Amino acid sequence: MMVQFSGRIMDVPKSFIREILKVAINPEIISFAGGLPNKDLFPVSEIQQAADIQFEEYGRDILQYSSTEGYLPLREYIAARYKEKKNLEVPTDNILITSGSQQALDLLGKVFIDKGDKIIIEEPGYLGAIQAFSIYEPKFSTVPLNERGLDNKCLNDILDKSNPKLIYLVPNFQNPSGISSSEDNRKETANLISERDLYLIEDDPYGELRYVGKNIKSFKKYLPKKTILLGSFSKVVAPSFRIGWIVAPDDVMDKLIIAKQASDLHTNFIGQRIIYQFLISNNLDEHVEKIKNKYNKQREKMLSAIEQYLPSGVSSTKPEGGMFLWLTLPEKLNAKVLFEKALNKKVAFVPGDPFYIGKRDLNTLRLNFSCVNEDKIEEGIKRLGTAIEESLDLRRRGKYVER
Amino acid sequence: MMVQFSGRIMDVPKSFIREILKVAINPEIISFAGGLPNKDLFPVSEIQQAADIQFEEYGRDILQYSSTEGYLPLREYIAARYKEKKNLEVPTDNILITSGSQQALDLLGKVFIDKGDKIIIEEPGYLGAIQAFSIYEPKFSTVPLNERGLDNKCLNDILDKSNPKLIYLVPNFQNPSGISSSEDNRKETANLISERDLYLIEDDPYGELRYVGKNIKSFKKYLPKKTILLGSFSKVVAPSFRIGWIVAPDDVMDKLIIAKQASDLHTNFIGQRIIYQFLISNNLDEHVEKIKNKYNKQREKMLSAIEQYLPSGVSSTKPEGGMFLWLTLPEKLNAKVLFEKALNKKVAFVPGDPFYIGKRDLNTLRLNFSCVNEDKIEEGIKRLGTAIEESLDLRRRGKYVER
Repeated sequence: MMVQFSGRIMDVPKSFIREILKVAINPEIISFAGGLPNKDLFPVSEIQQAADIQFEEYGRDILQYSSTEGYLPLREYIAARYKEKKNLEVPTDNILITSGSQQALDLLGKVFIDKGDKIIIEEPGYLGAIQAFSIYEPKFSTVPLNERGLDNKCLNDILDKSNPKLIYLVPNFQNPSGISSSEDNRKETANLISERDLYLIEDDPYGELRYVGKNIKSFKKYLPKKTILLGSFSKVVAPSFRIGWIVAPDDVMDKLIIAKQASDLHTNFIGQRIIYQFLISNNLDEHVEKIKNKYNKQREKMLSAIEQYLPSGVSSTKPEGGMFLWLTLPEKLNAKVLFEKALNKKVAFVPGDPFYIGKRDLNTLRLNFSCVNEDKIEEGIKRLGTAIEESLDLRRRGKYVER
Repeated sequence: MMVQFSGRIMDVPKSFIREILKVAINPEIISFAGGLPNKDLFPVSEIQQAADIQFEEYGRDILQYSSTEGYLPLREYIAARYKEKKNLEVPTDNILITSGSQQALDLLGKVFIDKGDKIIIEEPGYLGAIQAFSIYEPKFSTVPLNERGLDNKCLNDILDKSNPKLIYLVPNFQNPSGISSSEDNRKETANLISERDLYLIEDDPYGELRYVGKNIKSFKKYLPKKTILLGSFSKVVAPSFRIGWIVAPDDVMDKLIIAKQASDLHTNFIGQRIIYQFLISNNLDEHVEKIKNKYNKQREKMLSAIEQYLPSGVSSTKPEGGMFLWLTLPEKLNAKVLFEKALNKKVAFVPGDPFYIGKRDLNTLRLNFSCVNEDKIEEGIKRLGTAIEESLDLRRRGKYVER
């Protein structure tokens, strides 16, 4: 049978991370490869109660088809929380509930990207965004991240040279790097964008998970008409509901609603109702505090283990929140080669390659600290240190094979 | 701000049905416009129990991220039901859980359709499919439906002239027409396709809802390697979970999984677990019997009311199952004009236009009989009859304005 697949799907690589996660299921392996919240923190009984209340009180209404925009009281809750936490005025009409943040990326691809359109992402960049946007066949330009945030000089050059439609950023505790842009860095970025015709997509799944330092303003404060905000309950409640949202200007919202309807009619309604009931019956702030306490301990444990067990020449980001940090190995150490060696020592991570556009065999890697409990982190980093030492030793003896 | 939207999204019309449903919310209006299952039949307490069991027994596991393919035991259940009900061998690996059947259409568009590719749909055709595929900018060819099914002579001409990648069919109780293809008609269609390189998408959300006549073989029996089957729990359990599935050959499945991951990572897992528990704790056949009994009564009521109250010159399909029937008005009566008149008489339906490609101001319309209870059907059809009579009367007096 010779039916050709579409051009777009031939261009999207099979997820390397997916393959890694399959390998890392072995319980003997300490896996820093995942991107999952820690399931010990899921508020199981509270969510069960929320489901019971919804079934008891609203019976069959919660089982029917629902509106494309999403459950109105849930959208009102989100609007109120933006007001309370960030002093952002977000009209409920400008909030669309999506099937996780991943769908938000797909919908934005649908409504904006024609084949060959230019879009800007960070380097390293969020893999889910690279995959979602790739489906619509854009030309990616990448702007390197440093510890302060975006390399705005490079951004300026790209803006001068091309005419991008979108810039996609994860300003808080970015996946994969853990980097947050400083306030000054955001101002600079906003200044560069303010006079130009493009939208800034601010993806903020981790924003509530800050452990040190102080919160920094959303780009929506600097670029209120040009910022499209993405949010999610996956990291602060539970991911299995697949409930996220987009905040967008009126004209974009009109198009997003058309795209959403064509994509899945509406986000699963039963999940929206259960999450909503959980949110109004419980104190989300208290729950977020619990998550922050635990993740911060794990973050500190990982940072100190890195200090203690990884050889000099390995550098690490120092995330102020979120779930990830980013290692840079000594030059010419290929993180994919290291991955195989580390797996033999029963520790896993994600090599940096899939987070780049058109670069391979890099010396960077991502470590997740949210879903490995404190007592295993030290042992895992120790194993990783041994694997790196052995690679360095092979290199010193001229026996290191790069790929 | 002058950021251009994508070409694809400019081409997808805002759903007329969505606008109609907003109008039809007024409780004084008897609405045959919806496409909803009857909520009186939702097994609320059984689903609540299923949710409780899952929370009690599996706690935090059901709240975590899950696999892109979907929950394995649910896929096994679906495979077993195909075997039991249709004697179809469907390997579990060839089943992908989707966020409703609507997402199945989006994913198939993603993996197959490049701009300008040719695809075939029925006329009238399912609006959700027209919307989903339109996003990927194909060229549609349409094959008229008659009471036996597809006009295979027309299909043959199209296959000879063009080189379509896909043909999309709803062989059982089609939405919008209610028509089912006869066994002979399916054999003819399958013969025309068997020697050619294209996939047949068999969308079957209503297949279990047959009230009269006997079940007819799936196209997968005739074209096992060329049929992509779509199914859904929306009509036999409840739609708010947004859980459907695709059955596809190995190579297509590989691409669908990539597209699914880019689209929303995976279908909401909590819903998959609750539906699965419902299915193993209850007898789906008994539940489907209840639905069939009720819908069949409503169908009979509607058919007899049509006979009694609609003027001669109006013809109706006689569906053997499903949720819809299709009226053809006397020539030159525009169903959109009738819609306004009917609304004044407090009855609503969906004018035929959105179910066609490139044809407008047609004299056809869709009536739904699943979500209007028996006692209101007669009154609704009576009101519709009056509206049609008045239009005919205006026409006789030369005062009918077509649009």
